[in-house]
Amino acid sequence: AVFRSWDNPRANVYRRDNDIPYSWGTAVNVQAMVFGNMGEDCGTGVAFTRDPATGEKKLMGEFLTNAQGEDVVAGVRTPMPIAEMADKFPAAYKQFIEVCATLEDHYHDMQDIEFTVENEKLYILQTRNGKRTAQAALQIAVDLVAEGRKTEQEAILMIDPRNLDTLLHPQFDVKAIKAATPLGRGLGASPGAACGQAVFTAEDANAWNEAGKKVILVRLETSPEDITGMKAAQGILTVRGGMTSHAAVVARGMGKCCVSGCGDIAMDEENKKFTLGGKTFVEGDFISIDGSTGYIYDGIIPTVDAEISGNFGTIMGWTDKYRRLKVRTNADTPSDALKARELGAEGIGLCRTEHMFFEAERIAAFREMIFADSVEDREAALEKILPHQQGDFEKLYEALEGNPVCIRFLDPPLHEFVPTEEADIAHLAKVQGKSVEEIKALIASLHEFNPMMGHRGCRLAVTYPEIAAMQTKAVIRAAINIQKAHPDWNIVPEIMIPLVGEVKELKYVKKVVVETADAEIAAASVNLKYKVGTMIEIPRACLTADEIAANADFFSFGTNDLTQMGFGLSRDDAAKFLDAYYDAKIYEFDPFARLDQKGVGKLMKMAIELGKPANKDIHMGICGEHGGDPSSVEFCHELGLDYVSCSPFRVPIARLAAAQAAIKG
Amino acid sequence: AVFRSWDNPRANVYRRDNDIPYSWGTAVNVQAMVFGNMGEDCGTGVAFTRDPATGEKKLMGEFLTNAQGEDVVAGVRTPMPIAEMADKFPAAYKQFIEVCATLEDHYHDMQDIEFTVENEKLYILQTRNGKRTAQAALQIAVDLVAEGRKTEQEAILMIDPRNLDTLLHPQFDVKAIKAATPLGRGLGASPGAACGQAVFTAEDANAWNEAGKKVILVRLETSPEDITGMKAAQGILTVRGGMTSHAAVVARGMGKCCVSGCGDIAMDEENKKFTLGGKTFVEGDFISIDGSTGYIYDGIIPTVDAEISGNFGTIMGWTDKYRRLKVRTNADTPSDALKARELGAEGIGLCRTEHMFFEAERIAAFREMIFADSVEDREAALEKILPHQQGDFEKLYEALEGNPVCIRFLDPPLHEFVPTEEADIAHLAKVQGKSVEEIKALIASLHEFNPMMGHRGCRLAVTYPEIAAMQTKAVIRAAINIQKAHPDWNIVPEIMIPLVGEVKELKYVKKVVVETADAEIAAASVNLKYKVGTMIEIPRACLTADEIAANADFFSFGTNDLTQMGFGLSRDDAAKFLDAYYDAKIYEFDPFARLDQKGVGKLMKMAIELGKPANKDIHMGICGEHGGDPSSVEFCHELGLDYVSCSPFRVPIARLAAAQAAIKG
Repeated sequence: AVFRSWDNPRANVYRRDNDIPYSWGTAVNVQAMVFGNMGEDCGTGVAFTRDPATGEKKLMGEFLTNAQGEDVVAGVRTPMPIAEMADKFPAAYKQFIEVCATLEDHYHDMQDIEFTVENEKLYILQTRNGKRTAQAALQIAVDLVAEGRKTEQEAILMIDPRNLDTLLHPQFDVKAIKAATPLGRGLGASPGAACGQAVFTAEDANAWNEAGKKVILVRLETSPEDITGMKAAQGILTVRGGMTSHAAVVARGMGKCCVSGCGDIAMDEENKKFTLGGKTFVEGDFISIDGSTGYIYDGIIPTVDAEISGNFGTIMGWTDKYRRLKVRTNADTPSDALKARELGAEGIGLCRTEHMFFEAERIAAFREMIFADSVEDREAALEKILPHQQGDFEKLYEALEGNPVCIRFLDPPLHEFVPTEEADIAHLAKVQGKSVEEIKALIASLHEFNPMMGHRGCRLAVTYPEIAAMQTKAVIRAAINIQKAHPDWNIVPEIMIPLVGEVKELKYVKKVVVETADAEIAAASVNLKYKVGTMIEIPRACLTADEIAANADFFSFGTNDLTQMGFGLSRDDAAKFLDAYYDAKIYEFDPFARLDQKGVGKLMKMAIELGKPANKDIHMGICGEHGGDPSSVEFCHELGLDYVSCSPFRVPIARLAAAQAAIKG
Repeated sequence: AVFRSWDNPRANVYRRDNDIPYSWGTAVNVQAMVFGNMGEDCGTGVAFTRDPATGEKKLMGEFLTNAQGEDVVAGVRTPMPIAEMADKFPAAYKQFIEVCATLEDHYHDMQDIEFTVENEKLYILQTRNGKRTAQAALQIAVDLVAEGRKTEQEAILMIDPRNLDTLLHPQFDVKAIKAATPLGRGLGASPGAACGQAVFTAEDANAWNEAGKKVILVRLETSPEDITGMKAAQGILTVRGGMTSHAAVVARGMGKCCVSGCGDIAMDEENKKFTLGGKTFVEGDFISIDGSTGYIYDGIIPTVDAEISGNFGTIMGWTDKYRRLKVRTNADTPSDALKARELGAEGIGLCRTEHMFFEAERIAAFREMIFADSVEDREAALEKILPHQQGDFEKLYEALEGNPVCIRFLDPPLHEFVPTEEADIAHLAKVQGKSVEEIKALIASLHEFNPMMGHRGCRLAVTYPEIAAMQTKAVIRAAINIQKAHPDWNIVPEIMIPLVGEVKELKYVKKVVVETADAEIAAASVNLKYKVGTMIEIPRACLTADEIAANADFFSFGTNDLTQMGFGLSRDDAAKFLDAYYDAKIYEFDPFARLDQKGVGKLMKMAIELGKPANKDIHMGICGEHGGDPSSVEFCHELGLDYVSCSPFRVPIARLAAAQAAIKG
């Protein structure tokens, strides 16, 4: 039975979820059988030495007389609380209490013990460190330190960083979720639980939300235009896309529940309905989604809010004592930044400036910029965006109170910003003084076969240096203003040039940045230092990192793209075949969620080994999604990076993982 | 003047065309002036010691009395043939003849000499190795060896491999082309000259061709569905796409003239017209294109056919003596393969099986396969394709007469094979017993954001192992049949698994291949050896090449994709910004045309250094487009590869470049 269950699909999913390699074997212990079902002086039970739900220090468990283990587990008979065993088998109970203490003493951890009483004699069948909720894990860790059974370092190592997620997000009511059967499963892309009425457009999400309704936004995939709708929803469900698709990344940034890439959904966006698990859902139907497990449920499942105890703060305080890696956050808005700082972020590792362009007033100017006929027209349009962008940066600098803010210059291909609705196109044509056909032809000319490897990143700044100049002005002016307002802060703007693959690209764009920045600083007659660095997200950047490092103040590893290019694997398309890869045991984990140390990690190592000798002062961090994944954080510690940066709600996970890595040493 | 012209845009284009780095400087010689315009006892002229057009050994040149150099070049006065100088300045002429012999003797090459006569005294202003046509280059090289002035090796080094192209393809009539002004310029994607009437669809190209008309196929971009139309056309002109776009690659394979990526064309495919250089062309209008220079001309420019002299064979014979690298070809059809063998190919390095699926009968079965609901249905559809594919392979083995044939298994994403026309969709729906809406939904579900990094290559074989099984059967059965028919040949099929990035992918697909192949061989009771290897085209494959090599009989570097992934640069989208990159001197050459040794080459080097120790018997080659580029061939020689593989018409170039690399040592 053990060997048969060893390799079943459920076991493999469990392994993947828990970072257990397929190659590990199993052992089987063969023991003499004892019988709990030989009469009324027999029995069997299971007990935890502390409460696995809350961590409270008291024996918890269940017990049945004249029964075997299956009877307790199967729920056919209702077991009695463990305390009643004191009446039935006083001697065995007394001995059991002693054994519990001995075992806890030995393992220095809460034990999950199975036992049988045969003719009043106690037999211990098995003990193991008990599974526990995140809340209990913190309580037990803090108590064990207080009891002198664990050091702070040992206590830190006890906690699985991935469990912290559940402390920070709403969860389904435990009983309700046990009773529910999922309709289907996507990827648990952003943790938490959500329940609401299905809507199919960002506009509807906004409208229903304003009308006081809770909604789940269901989309084939999300695009930057959906952001306000995503904010308005309780959760997001997408048919396409992986763990680092647009929906997943943005939702994690917002701390919003998201299930992505549920390919089993037959979607009919036009008619606002979809089919899953044999049931068709129309607008307004209730669904519930779990962004941790990826399960999708029919109807209403009640959720309970997150509750952060004092233990959380205690343990986070310990992690800060022991970790070497700094932890920054990926945040584009002051509210995200504030949330992240609350959770312990020591700076912004990645501010994506493009998200700022989608608000109504700005998108118009941005589109004017895209469709400008000349450099002058483009500069005129950029001039309209400049004050907005400067204002955004000022608010970020305010929120960070002098902590570092690393601002990435415009990255996505321009076609992400063009209108798709007929009305918007007609409006744009009017503004631009062009015909609708001309605008459509221009939009078509922006089409790309492989946008991920197209006209984006620093390639935009090479073709349109005026964009980089505008963004530099916004950064430097904002920094000057906030530095003036807070002379005690030390603001050193970090400007990050994305998608560099050849040092001459960096030099070219850096020249624009430095000339613009120096002119701004001179005009303001202030003394402001700033840094210009680059994302390392193209394999060739790793291969030529010596040349690049000599021209960069910092490297920030963009491991999302580095994974895409390194594997030749589009994260938005991978969901279609990843399951086949898991089934065939080709991949043991999603390389977008957990860093592939063997391949992508080797590129990073190469970049560090080439880069550091070329520039001894270079500062290195990671701003890909991997910055919030515990095993990847450990790897970054080993690589000798200076910091990791992750979405706000993952900051505690990164702090804990960084401390664990330092303690493991 | 020298310094001013040094950095002008024309100079930079010249450098890029001739592989001269921007970083090289220029020197200026300052000399005393002599005057050829001080009277009738003065003059000036230019002469070649051999005919630069044919290579014939006789003095060629022009001469003017009482004139300066500009007068000869500018064409204001008509110069006299050099021979007449014998009458005007007998002493100077005699001396000049002697100087010519001395200079040729010294440089061991044909000289281009500028001279002035001042008061009857001869001054030599400048001498240099003269520019020459490809035909002349061969003639001079062969003559110099016959004269004992050069060794065969030295003669080989004299010839620029890139010039051989002009020997193998039709060219414009020299006088006509001098008189013509180009309307615009795209990329010279496949050499040769072509003239014909513009058509806008593959169907029209076929129909007009059958009606006896010569046509140029003008497309936004080509797709695999256009192949028969491309064959029927004299040349292909595309608006989008780079040097390794579909049109470029296929045209080069066919030896067909192609100008790609002419972004200046305003295309209106629907109405079958386009505008370029201020002129609108409709269906049937004559245009002329030059696939070597990329120029596009209005109207009819006569072409002259290629003429291959005996010198070509002589020199190719020499190259085979000295080169170490084998030269194979990329060919999918027997006619391409025969052409390549004629030009010296020693095997097929890359047979792309997908091109075989587009013929009418097969595409239907292939689409059935794509839209099959079950493995059984898919297998039934594949069963229909099997005999066709087997027949194709048999013809290839016949054409190769026992030389190696490396067959790559299905590579492109499936959406490349789905119908786009309403009628075809309706037909498919009928065949599949589905509604048009269902078929459309299925087609939509195949859409990918970044198809280059999507569900393709070995990923198809992982999700649909039955495709790999069918292709294995076709290869093995074909090999068995042809081996039986020709017992003196030694047929060893080479099966190539594309897009491997992780050894477990290769192992998984290889298991299907080996099991199928062994079963076929056992069933036929024959003794057939075969090899299973992989394309190395994903950066991660290079990074983990030790693991992969231990499971592969050969590596074939797919440097097109390796360049795309290494640079994070989509070849189909790069044309939009490459010009800006050249102008800013960020790129010195198109990395898809010429291998980037610093980055992509480093990945190759890593793969070789990791792979060879892991498998001492491993065979390594290159099958990317770079296999036909001289500087890349030299690099492959240095890397220690066993062979290069290139499109048929580039085989002579590769042979020459391989010999040059070996001679340079």
